[in-house]
Amino acid sequence: MSPPFVKHLFVCLNDRGPGHPRGSCAQKGSEKLHEAFKAALKKRGLSDRIRANKAGCLDNCEHGCSVVVYPEGVWYGHVTPEDVDEIVERHLLGGEPIARLRLYGEPK
Amino acid sequence: MSPPFVKHLFVCLNDRGPGHPRGSCAQKGSEKLHEAFKAALKKRGLSDRIRANKAGCLDNCEHGCSVVVYPEGVWYGHVTPEDVDEIVERHLLGGEPIARLRLYGEPK
Repeated sequence: MSPPFVKHLFVCLNDRGPGHPRGSCAQKGSEKLHEAFKAALKKRGLSDRIRANKAGCLDNCEHGCSVVVYPEGVWYGHVTPEDVDEIVERHLLGGEPIARLRLYGEPK
Repeated sequence: MSPPFVKHLFVCLNDRGPGHPRGSCAQKGSEKLHEAFKAALKKRGLSDRIRANKAGCLDNCEHGCSVVVYPEGVWYGHVTPEDVDEIVERHLLGGEPIARLRLYGEPK
């Protein structure tokens, strides 16, 4: 039995194709971003407690690559593979969201 | 601006193809289930506050179709389109999870 996860992170993999006016996360490299999260969690032996999931459109196309972390409901935008270790270490393990990547401020 | 959503529901759309020993949610009709959630939310004018998202594998293949609702972290298994109105009305709007569909009991 694996879920419920302590942290559950969703990476938008929506793909509107090249040149779409709204853009889309897949066109900004979110497939590689998802793989980087998976690898970072696996490397630390966290995969059974923290899951990095693929998601359909998270309705943040203009801020892609977009990511949301539950249960706390922290939204990130413009996330790159270079941000992954910091998100894992400081936020997912340390409990401190990464201010410079956040969208929307504190959740409702 | 649409997110953060008050409730964010993820429907597993993972597809392992027919005959896979673990099964998979897409083979059990999760595409139609996701569409049913989207339609039920739209019909009630809730789409900007409550989102039914596609997700990759939620690691619950044997309990599919599987669904998780955040921020509360309630997991459901064996969900069918016939359950959608009840989940929307009683849980997403009424705040009362549907006991007969729950997996894992209370979240950590």
